[in-house]
Amino acid sequence: MRIERLAILGVGLIGGSLARALKAADACGEVVGFGRDAAHLQRAVELGVIDRAGTDLGEVVAGADLVVAAVPIGAMDPLLGKLAACLGDETVVTDVGSVKRTVLESAQERLGAGFARFVAGHPIAGTEKSGVEASRAELFQGHRVILTPHADTGGPALALVRGMWETVGAEVIEMDAALHDEVLAATSHLPHILAYTLVDALARMKEHDDIFRYAAGGFADFTRIAASSPQMWHDICLANRDALLDVLKGFRSDLDDFADAVLQADSQRIFDLFSRAKAARDALDQKD
Amino acid sequence: MRIERLAILGVGLIGGSLARALKAADACGEVVGFGRDAAHLQRAVELGVIDRAGTDLGEVVAGADLVVAAVPIGAMDPLLGKLAACLGDETVVTDVGSVKRTVLESAQERLGAGFARFVAGHPIAGTEKSGVEASRAELFQGHRVILTPHADTGGPALALVRGMWETVGAEVIEMDAALHDEVLAATSHLPHILAYTLVDALARMKEHDDIFRYAAGGFADFTRIAASSPQMWHDICLANRDALLDVLKGFRSDLDDFADAVLQADSQRIFDLFSRAKAARDALDQKD
Repeated sequence: MRIERLAILGVGLIGGSLARALKAADACGEVVGFGRDAAHLQRAVELGVIDRAGTDLGEVVAGADLVVAAVPIGAMDPLLGKLAACLGDETVVTDVGSVKRTVLESAQERLGAGFARFVAGHPIAGTEKSGVEASRAELFQGHRVILTPHADTGGPALALVRGMWETVGAEVIEMDAALHDEVLAATSHLPHILAYTLVDALARMKEHDDIFRYAAGGFADFTRIAASSPQMWHDICLANRDALLDVLKGFRSDLDDFADAVLQADSQRIFDLFSRAKAARDALDQKD
Repeated sequence: MRIERLAILGVGLIGGSLARALKAADACGEVVGFGRDAAHLQRAVELGVIDRAGTDLGEVVAGADLVVAAVPIGAMDPLLGKLAACLGDETVVTDVGSVKRTVLESAQERLGAGFARFVAGHPIAGTEKSGVEASRAELFQGHRVILTPHADTGGPALALVRGMWETVGAEVIEMDAALHDEVLAATSHLPHILAYTLVDALARMKEHDDIFRYAAGGFADFTRIAASSPQMWHDICLANRDALLDVLKGFRSDLDDFADAVLQADSQRIFDLFSRAKAARDALDQKD
C-alpha cells in the first residue's frame, strides 16, 4: 500500500496523527493539508506533520490519490459539496467522522458519480485533547477502525482505505452505518453527555467549591471526557440525533427505576443492579 | 503520635492499607484485626498486614488505644452496638465510612458516654478493587480525609484521629456531616450510580456483543468504577438515601433539559452546556 499524494482536510488530532503515522510507515509520498486557518496550517508544516498546505481546496486535492476529510461532522456536508467540484476522476475520498449515516447521505447527495469512490470510516481512537499539537504517529496502533461501506462503494476504493488503516496498525472492521451509529450512541456519545451534564451540574451547585475540592477517587477519570472539544461533540449530537434520543430515553428510564429502588429502599434491586454491572464490567476488562 | 495497640475491625482495602501505613511509619505497636471470616483474617496475618486476629470482638478491642471500624456502612450500626458492650474507658473509636450522618447517629445512639470518644471520618481514597490483597501502605499519601466531628466529640479523641491520618500522609479536613453527605452524593455516589446504570443498560441491549466490542475511547475510564464492590455501594446508597435522591432528581432534570435541546436541535444550548462543562473540568485539572 502506497499513497503518492495524500490530502488531509482538517489537520487536527486525527488528521495530523494519520499523516504522521503514514509518514512513519513510509507509506506515502507528499502530504498536503487543507484548512481555513493559514497560521494553524503553517504550524502543522513546521511540526513536520504535513509537507505543504493551502486554504484553496481545489489546489490541495489536485492530483491526490486519497483525500481524508477530518473536519468536525458539522463541517462535512459543505466540505463534500465543495469537494465535488474539484475531485479528480480516480481520487478516493474517506472521512473519520464519529457518525456515519448522515455522512454517507451527504456524500451520496454531494459527490454524484464520485460516491463510488467514497468510503465512510471511523477510527475508534482519540483523547480528550484536540488539535495538531496533540497528534502522534502511534494513535491508531492496536485500535479499531470501523468502515461502513454502502452498496455503491467500489471495491478498489474500499481496499485502499482498509490498507491505509492497516498500515498504521489499526484493526479494520466493516459494519452497517445504522448499526455503527446505534452502537456509538450507546458506548461513546451517551457517556460523553453524562460526563458533560454531571460536570456542568456540579459547577452550578451552591457548594461548588467544596464539591470540586473534595471530588473523590474515580471522579477525575469519570469526568475526563468532559474536557473534550465542545464543537466536536455538539456536531456529533446533532448528526446522530435519532440514535442519541433513543439511548437517552432508555437511560433516563433506567435511572428512574434506580431512583425508585432507592426511594423504596429496595435492597435486593439495588444489589442486583450493581452486581450485574460489575460482572459485565469485569468481563470487559478480561477481553482487553 | 504513637498508638500502642490498634484494633482494625474489617481488614479490607481501607483497614488493611491503614494498618500497613501506620506500621510503615513506625507509628503503632500491635495491630489486631477483627472480622467474621477466620480464613480471611489468617490471610491478613500472613501478608503481614496485622499482627494477630480474632473473631471475638471483646478480645480484639481489649486494651486498644484506638479502634478503627472499617466495615461496609450497612454493618456499622450492629457493630457499634456490640462495641458499646466491650469498649475500654479510654479507647478512641473512628470509622472510615463513605456516609457520615447515619454513622454519627448510630454512634450517638449505641455508644452512650463513649460517643465523646467517637470521631467520624472518611478517607477520600480507594480504587475499584477491594479486599486486603489490594491494600497498600501508600494508599492515603496525598489524599484528603474528611472528619465530621459532632458538638459532643472530645478534643483529645479528635486530635488522635487527626494525627493518625496525618502520619500516613493524608491532608485532614473538618466538615459538617450533612455537608459531607451532600458533597459526596454529588461527586462520588452519583457518578458510581451513573456508571453502574450505564454498564447494566449496555449489557442488556440486544447488540451487547457489538457494544462491548467497539466500546470507544474513554469508555473504559468512564465505567471502571462500575467494577467497585456492589455490597459497599449498595450500603452507601441506602445510608445516604436523602442526599442521593436529591442529586438524582437534579441530574434527571438536567438530562431532560439536554434531551430537549437535542430534540429541538438547539445548537446554541448544546454548545453552551459542553463549553461550560469543559471550562469547569479544565479548571479542576489545574487544581491538581
